[in-house]
This record gives sequence, C-alpha cells and structure tokens, in this order.
Amino acid sequence: MATSDDILTEIDAEQGRALERLFAFLRIPSISAAPAHFPDCERGADWLVSQVAELGFDVAKHPTEGRPMVVGHVKAARRDAPHVLFYGHYDVQPADPLSLWRSPPFEPTLEAGPRGERIVARGASDDKGQLMTFLEACRAFKKFGGLPCAVTVLFEGEEETGSPSLPAFLAKNAKTLKADVALVCDTGMWGPSTPAITTALRGLVADEVILRGANRDLHSGIYGGAAVNPIHVLCRILGDLHDTKGAVALPGFYDGVEELPDEIREQWSELDFDAAAFLGDVGLTTPAGERNRTPLEQIWSRPTCEVNGIVGGYTGEGMKTVLPAEARAKVSFRLVGKQSPERIVQSFRSLVGSRLPPDVKAEFISHGGSPAISLPIRSEALRRARRALEAEWGRPPALVGGGGSIPIVGAFKRELNMDSLLVGFALEDDNHHSPNEKYELTSFHKGARSWARILSALAS
Amino acid sequence: MATSDDILTEIDAEQGRALERLFAFLRIPSISAAPAHFPDCERGADWLVSQVAELGFDVAKHPTEGRPMVVGHVKAARRDAPHVLFYGHYDVQPADPLSLWRSPPFEPTLEAGPRGERIVARGASDDKGQLMTFLEACRAFKKFGGLPCAVTVLFEGEEETGSPSLPAFLAKNAKTLKADVALVCDTGMWGPSTPAITTALRGLVADEVILRGANRDLHSGIYGGAAVNPIHVLCRILGDLHDTKGAVALPGFYDGVEELPDEIREQWSELDFDAAAFLGDVGLTTPAGERNRTPLEQIWSRPTCEVNGIVGGYTGEGMKTVLPAEARAKVSFRLVGKQSPERIVQSFRSLVGSRLPPDVKAEFISHGGSPAISLPIRSEALRRARRALEAEWGRPPALVGGGGSIPIVGAFKRELNMDSLLVGFALEDDNHHSPNEKYELTSFHKGARSWARILSALAS
Repeated sequence: MATSDDILTEIDAEQGRALERLFAFLRIPSISAAPAHFPDCERGADWLVSQVAELGFDVAKHPTEGRPMVVGHVKAARRDAPHVLFYGHYDVQPADPLSLWRSPPFEPTLEAGPRGERIVARGASDDKGQLMTFLEACRAFKKFGGLPCAVTVLFEGEEETGSPSLPAFLAKNAKTLKADVALVCDTGMWGPSTPAITTALRGLVADEVILRGANRDLHSGIYGGAAVNPIHVLCRILGDLHDTKGAVALPGFYDGVEELPDEIREQWSELDFDAAAFLGDVGLTTPAGERNRTPLEQIWSRPTCEVNGIVGGYTGEGMKTVLPAEARAKVSFRLVGKQSPERIVQSFRSLVGSRLPPDVKAEFISHGGSPAISLPIRSEALRRARRALEAEWGRPPALVGGGGSIPIVGAFKRELNMDSLLVGFALEDDNHHSPNEKYELTSFHKGARSWARILSALAS
Repeated sequence: MATSDDILTEIDAEQGRALERLFAFLRIPSISAAPAHFPDCERGADWLVSQVAELGFDVAKHPTEGRPMVVGHVKAARRDAPHVLFYGHYDVQPADPLSLWRSPPFEPTLEAGPRGERIVARGASDDKGQLMTFLEACRAFKKFGGLPCAVTVLFEGEEETGSPSLPAFLAKNAKTLKADVALVCDTGMWGPSTPAITTALRGLVADEVILRGANRDLHSGIYGGAAVNPIHVLCRILGDLHDTKGAVALPGFYDGVEELPDEIREQWSELDFDAAAFLGDVGLTTPAGERNRTPLEQIWSRPTCEVNGIVGGYTGEGMKTVLPAEARAKVSFRLVGKQSPERIVQSFRSLVGSRLPPDVKAEFISHGGSPAISLPIRSEALRRARRALEAEWGRPPALVGGGGSIPIVGAFKRELNMDSLLVGFALEDDNHHSPNEKYELTSFHKGARSWARILSALAS
C-alpha cells in the first residue's frame, strides 16, 4: 500500500495530464436544456465511461427517459473498507448570451487571474471540473495498488434540468447504489483558502406559464385598445408575486418555512460573511429580498420566487407595433424547511388562473422540483472529512448553507436512506450559469488532493 | 385621349402581367427594422425606380440618413390639370414568427380564399400591393396618351420604423413635392365590397426601456433572495401602466384627448360595425380596453398604451435558474386629438425612473413618433373621390377613422401644408404585421381601377 504522501505526490506530478483530460471533457457541449445538444450529452456520458473504465471500474452507460446515467463500481484494496458513492453531473447550463464570453464557452482555456491561473469554459466549475477532482484522486490511488474505500460513481446528465429521471433510476437500482455515505462534489468553498462542507440546501421547483389571447399576432393600430394584450396580463400577475416588503405573495407560500435553529444561526454569525462584498462583486449595493432578513439568511434559509425568463411580442432590433398572441415566463421557487414543491406550483397556477381576464388562457409546463434538505452536522463521516480538509488547506472547513438545490441529495435520502457529504471547491466568483464560467487551477489541484485525503480518512 | 372605358379595359387586360410585377416586388425582403435587410431595402427602392421610369416618370433614388426615398414626376396630358402627390412605402414588417406562415413570406403565392384568390406574402397588402394599384393605373393611362393629372410619386422605406427621415426630406424638397392634394394608399376598405376614405388617424409614439441590475447574469441559487431581479421590476412597472378600468395610468396621458365631434360620432354610429365579428375573427369575445367605450371608439378615437415586446433572462427550451442582469420592453402609445408624442414619452420615462429600486438603472431608446391627425371631410377632392369610388364599387364609400398611424399624413400637413386623401383597398383580415399577410386579388384589380377613376375625376 502507498502512503498518503505517495498519493499526493502522484496527484501533483499528474497535473498537466489531468488538465488535458478535463479540457477534453469541457469541449463536449453537453447542455441538457437544449434538445439540439442531446447527442452531446451522450458523448459526455461516453467520455466518462471510457475515463472510469481506465481507472479499473466496472462501468456502463444506462439509458433513461432523458439523458443517460453512468454508473461504475470498484472494490477497495482492503476487504473491510467502507463503501462510498460519488455523485457528479456531466451536463452543463446553456452558454448564452454568447456575446459576453471572452473566449468560446466550449473551447477551454487557461487565463491569468488574481489567484493564479484558472480554467475558463462552460462547466469548468459546474460540474465537470469538480467531478474530475474525484476521478483524479482515484487515478492516483490506482497507481499505488487501489482505492482505500470501495467506490461507486454515479454521473447524471440532467442536473441542470431538475434531474427528472433520477428518482426512478435510484429506486430501480437501490441495491447497486446504496453505500455507507454519498460524496457529492457540486458545492463551493467558503473563501479562496477556506474549505467548506455544506449541511443545508434550498430546494427548487420551476414552472413555465404561457398566456394566450388572440389566435394570432395583431396590428396594434387596428386592434390596439380593443384586443387583450397577454404581455400586460403576464406583467400584472408577475409584478404582484412579491409584496412591498419583498415577501412572496403566493397564498400558502410560507407554509413549512421554519426559523433557523439557534445552533445554525450561531455558526453562521461566526462566519466572516461580507454582505457588501458579496453584492458589490456583481455591481449591487442593496439586498433586494425580504426586508427584515440578513443577506446570508436571504440566500441560505429563506425561500424565494424568481422570474428566470420572460418573452413576448417583438424582441428584435427596432420597433414592431405588434399586439402579440402570447407571452410566456419561466418562474422558479427556492424552497426551505418543509415547503412542498407540489403545493407551491399548485398555488402559483391557481393564482395565475384567478387573475386571467376574459379571452386569456394559461398553459403550464412543469420543470420539476425537489424540497429543501438539511444534513446531520455531527456524523462520523463529517468529522473525518473536516479533519482531512483541515490537513489539506491548513484551516478547518466552515459548515455552511447553500442557496442552490442539489436534487440528488434529497433523492439519496428518500430513495436510498443515505446521507451525503457535500464537499466542493467552487468559488463564489466562478460564474456558475453565467458567461466566462471558470474554475481556479488551485481548486482543481487541491480538490483532487482533498478527495485523496478524505478517502483515506474515511477508511482509516 | 382615351375614354375612361379604354383605361379600365386596359387594366383588366393587363392583370396577369400586373401580378407578375407585384410578385417581383414582393420577393424583395425589404424589412426596414432589421439592419441585415438594409441592402434589400436598397433593392426595393431600385426596383421601384425602374418601374416608375418605365411609366415615363423622371425618377431618382434619394439617399437619406436611413433608407432611401424614391421620387418621380410626370406631367399631365393636359396643361391645366391638377397636380397630385402619391405616397406609398416599399418597406415591410419583419416576418417572424416564420413557423406560422403557410408559405415562405418572401415567396409570393396565389391562394384560394372565401372571396376568390388572394396574394400571400409579407407586404402583399401593407404596402406593396396597395402601392402597385396606383402604378398599374398610371401604366394604363400611359398607353393611352398620358395621365389626366400631373403626378409626383414619393415612396419611402421607413414607414414601418416610424419614418425618421421623412420630415427633413419633405422640408428640404418642399418645392418639388408640394401638390394640390396627396393621395395615400395605406388604408383599408370598410368591408369586402364597401370602399372607404379614412379621415382620422391615430398618432403613434414608441419607446424602448432597458432595466439593468447586477453587472452579469447570476445563479438564482447563489444570489436569489438578495440580488435584485430586473424582470420583476419591469413587470411591476408595466403591470401598472393600466388601471383596473383599462385606462392608461401615465400622469398627463389624457391631456389633449378630445371627445368625438357629434358629426363624426353620428357617421360612425351609422356604420354597420359588428364588434363581435371584429373580435371573433381573431378568437376574442370581450373588448379589453377602456371599460366605458365602444370597440369602434377604442380603436379609432381613444389613445392606447401597448407593450409590443418584452424579453429578459432565459427564454430557450427547458429551464435555466438564472437571475438576469437585464430585462427590456418595447412600448408604444397610439395617440388621438392633441396628445403630444414628446410629452407622453417624457411622462413614461419619468414614471419608470420614479419606480426604480436601488441598483436598477434604466436606459431608453426612442423609436420616434407622430401626433394624431384628422382630415377635412368636406373638400372638393374628397367629394370627387367619393363619386369615383361609388362608380367602381356600386356603393358610396364609408368615411371612417383609422386606428393605425400614417406619419406621412401629418408630415404633409405640417411640412407642405397639404391635405391628404386616404384611399386603400386592404381588408381587416389581411394579416398586416402578422403571419400569412395577404391581399385579395379583387383589391389589387379593383384598386387599380379605382385609382384610374379617381385620377379622372380629380381632373374632370
């Protein structure tokens, strides 16, 4: 068996080739929201299959009703080692608006940044770079006789579209996938040199509404003043989704929302969160949500309603005096506590329905959802991971909340009764879901080293 | 000199070739709102120059800061004949959404319809088909010794974008363009077999607003709840532009709006306007504008505010949990009476400015405007045109209002102190500005015959 130092030295020595592997992965535009890119999602899955096979795993691509799953297994070097399930996703967000990228989103490049070099590409951080930190750790162990834990990997291709195929897949393959603990690498650091373990995540539910009026686009000169304009109706409804104090004005929206437990509130108040810097980094000065909450509460422990997209009528250059036949919006809700995704979508749809004037009809398209989750903050796995991260980074990890949702974590609990350990190396300014997404080379390198230490610690 | 019958017979005999000429014109995608189509606008102007030259006019293309003007002159067969200025526009609306067209918008085709064959193409009715009715009448006169009136033609290529270059062009060329009366063929019939002369037109002013929040698109999981969402702000503002009774809620909006003169109200009440059929034709049942007005008032004599387009965030397929950096909308106002385009845009911009929360900035793009106009309803030219139209159609024309704006008419009055005679052969269901725009073959044919009769009547 290798010593821990052998493994870490091997990871250091392999950095150049590791980067080449990640770049190859990033060149695949596996956008799960766009049907035109479904073949690229297949390519992304195939690429992972070949990678994981190289590492000695028994691995296969599994079809679903949506994008395929990749599942692989490898035994531990020692027989009584614990069994972990590592999860990541190979799909990425759409890259638009393309005009704002400094380099093409699917041509990864190294760029100089204030903290050293960084990898720029769609998916560099979310989640291809993060996913590869784990595979690079596995690669180092393979060279020195094998992994300290038995490892199952599960990679999905629908995380960015709400993981619709995941629950059924977990239920069907529960026996194969169940492990002692799940490792999920889709979260961030607390700061550039402070690691973090995420113990609470908001849920998410998303819906799309299409309002239709006349049976065709009309000339506003001929019909304007007499024909209903679906854009007006949509704006009135969406404009009233928040009250004057920033709270969400859907009936029953706050059912199941709980105040923070004192223990967590205390932890968070000890974090050196700089709200002014958090907002200032993106050009803002003033928290815009619920008036009586701190920004950290707003993003970690309070639910939200956001219109993520709206479109109707003529949106090209110049002017067209059209009175459009339809208008549509994509709306999503971040959930906390025991808020029910189903009941909130129902409440949204009822509200829209109740506010339609004559001649306007609404159609809805569900984009899936999952409730909020919170993870145990006193487990043995957590204790060991904290120590491992402290050894790598020179300071203990912060226990933090997360504003985004990672549906898999809830599904692991629900379908496999398995807790997750959420460790990731993304930074706040990684531009997830935005142009010029990046991943610090340090995150990529020390991320792999961190996983090597965590795997060793879990097996020790 | 030819008799009137010679001319009408010649128009009838020429129908096949007249249609070929119109089709050639319609194949040019001269969309003035889209910079990519500016070269096509040039081609449209060039095509008109060659047509008008064929008819014996002294004609040229005149550059402007935008799309070019085409101006041509021809003398009358008789020396003491009146002088008319005919106006039309060679630019067309954008054709999107393309998917709703039954045939490609710039590949004109004949289609069977309930009233006989019709010409389907973008611009078939607005305004290429209408414009060509006049040129076909001129062509017939040419064959028989010349026109009964001296004729100046003026064709512009910016009507669909608010005619920005027109006022300066008129002022600069006032001496050349001034005539006894302007003939404008950009309006419609009262019904499929009842012609109309339009004597009142709403004005139009359009503005675009862009709201910007954060300096880039954000991940709603990370920032949602703390960062301002420009779509929300835009919806709140636009949603409040109308009050609960359908009136426009801009301060000062109704300044200069007058009640209908009794004489006009009486005329209109005698028209067999079927509000249920007007709305029913486009799939609607209920007038949506100001509560206490008839639909005819709503579209002819009342001002409006319409959001013609809105866009922000992710609008592709599927879902993207983005919190967008900006949202934008195109807004236009139909004007009546003495409403001032400038004051209304100012009021709109002030209202937007007054409702911006911290961190949100507004930018505005002006899309031009012109006030409402009303034309004399007792002039000699109008009397003669009524008789000519009655001779062609077998029933007297209705004197109607128009909901759309034709900026040229106001400009002719303002810059050249010249009244206009608004005669057109479009039908309500011609799908102006919509997919599958069409022009009845009857409109095209009897339109040319109508102009022949009107020109003769004006000269008699």
